[in-house]
Amino acid sequence: MTLAMTPVEESQLFDFLKECSEKVEDMLESLLPQPDDELEESRLFEAMRYSVFAGGKRLRPFLILSTNQLLGGEQTPAIEERAVRVAAAIEMLHTFSLIHDDLPCMDNDNLRRGKPTCHVQFDEFTAVLAGDALLSSCFEVLADFQTHPDASIRAELVRIAAASTGPLGMMGGQMIDMLAEQREEGERVVEQGELARLQRKKTGALFQACCECAALLNHADKMVQLHLQSYARNVGLAFQMIDDVLDVTGTKEQLGKTPGKDAIANKATFATLLGVDGARRQAEALCEQAQEQLAHFGPEAQPLRLLARYIVNRSY
Amino acid sequence: MTLAMTPVEESQLFDFLKECSEKVEDMLESLLPQPDDELEESRLFEAMRYSVFAGGKRLRPFLILSTNQLLGGEQTPAIEERAVRVAAAIEMLHTFSLIHDDLPCMDNDNLRRGKPTCHVQFDEFTAVLAGDALLSSCFEVLADFQTHPDASIRAELVRIAAASTGPLGMMGGQMIDMLAEQREEGERVVEQGELARLQRKKTGALFQACCECAALLNHADKMVQLHLQSYARNVGLAFQMIDDVLDVTGTKEQLGKTPGKDAIANKATFATLLGVDGARRQAEALCEQAQEQLAHFGPEAQPLRLLARYIVNRSY
Repeated sequence: MTLAMTPVEESQLFDFLKECSEKVEDMLESLLPQPDDELEESRLFEAMRYSVFAGGKRLRPFLILSTNQLLGGEQTPAIEERAVRVAAAIEMLHTFSLIHDDLPCMDNDNLRRGKPTCHVQFDEFTAVLAGDALLSSCFEVLADFQTHPDASIRAELVRIAAASTGPLGMMGGQMIDMLAEQREEGERVVEQGELARLQRKKTGALFQACCECAALLNHADKMVQLHLQSYARNVGLAFQMIDDVLDVTGTKEQLGKTPGKDAIANKATFATLLGVDGARRQAEALCEQAQEQLAHFGPEAQPLRLLARYIVNRSY
Repeated sequence: MTLAMTPVEESQLFDFLKECSEKVEDMLESLLPQPDDELEESRLFEAMRYSVFAGGKRLRPFLILSTNQLLGGEQTPAIEERAVRVAAAIEMLHTFSLIHDDLPCMDNDNLRRGKPTCHVQFDEFTAVLAGDALLSSCFEVLADFQTHPDASIRAELVRIAAASTGPLGMMGGQMIDMLAEQREEGERVVEQGELARLQRKKTGALFQACCECAALLNHADKMVQLHLQSYARNVGLAFQMIDDVLDVTGTKEQLGKTPGKDAIANKATFATLLGVDGARRQAEALCEQAQEQLAHFGPEAQPLRLLARYIVNRSY
């Protein structure tokens, strides 16, 4: 099993990513409130759209739609439509987390995906409200009849997304991250295990939720669910390790954000704990494990396999 | 129909409020994550609990439980239990909105319910995350099987709560409010209709959602739903009008927060637009209309009737 990618495979993955982005962006366009000069609150709608449409790889939608393809749902238009709606909702949730993470009181980032962050483009209160509104909207979409005719599926989609975001999920991870940054040099006791725990919550929980939601839409059996969860967990952690590596080795042009921020903040990352090469090697091991989870599947698993390889090969 | 309250009626309402607070606080205690010194993210759990248990009248839970009583649900322990869970979830959502409203970039309030606001007691990033986590947790509770055995009810509870919070609800209202505050004196064109629209979104939408959720738990018919919606809308708007009046006439000790902030911010309120007496009179008219919506009910509507009268009689 090799992780290296041929140019053909890379362009195959980019085609998958592009197709997925287009579907999800069309759906987001129809789901997000339309700006309207007659309405004062229109500024909120603009800010929500600004951040949602600021680019990004749409990895979480890709995870959902690729898992849906893996499980055969893509071949039934009704199921594919549901998966696209869920993917759009989860991308709203992800965008909420980016907007709030970038706030001055959090990571204080001015640049995201090569564009001014929401609070820079608008202002701080608009960014707080836009994030809040996107989080609410995610759940409104998931609970909507149009997302699935079976209410037990809708309620379960909400539960999965909310649990991955709440105090035991992403918000808990973000809290650990902020506290770790604030520690004095001398008290720094961040170890690899602690960092992995943080990142499993901060990034991994939502990656895993994506695969769980797609499994739910396809009534996947328990065994398949476990393989997918393990795939998502490994890919999520590897993704974060490479993110840390790129913060050391990448350029602003490649990343679309300011590199070296971790070093300036004197932050413990996988790159500082394991070294750039060590972090890369661990990410590779995780992506190999992720691929093994897909061993029982055929060519329908190709997008998920390519994603696991792309994550360690990406330069932005 | 009189709005004045005898001391007996007032103490009857306070008993209702107290009983309701106790039920909901016990439920919140069991639903919110337990602080644990072993966990770094425990600070997040502490902040969530700090703000949730900082007092407050628990008016939204009261609306839910009183509507549940009105519709007979209180007499079936299973339905009462569901209503208490929904009330706890909505109180989490309400607390989220208070924490974020108080942030330096929003209303910049240091005092709430007589105590330091979340970002003062903890810090700003903790307050942002605690709000986010409470919002997520609300939906996680509503979508949970324990809240209702019928998934279509669970999904609908989520939809109602999310719609009342999102860009067309509370977040939209907060955006209009923030923009109105920032306008230059000369451009100030806030009129009563605009202010009512703002407040219907900012406060009214969630009040209405409370009655809708309780109606849903009791399978109330369309006519009853409409009466309850109208009741909640009127009571919500009256509540805000008296809030504005109290900001002019109340003391810090009475209010548990700094009065006169609207005047300092040169903010258009019902008190500035209609005068203190005018705002009070309008609030009274709204509360009378609210009471009329309950005309077809018997003594089981007593808590909701007393609430409508209390709102114009309260001094904090």
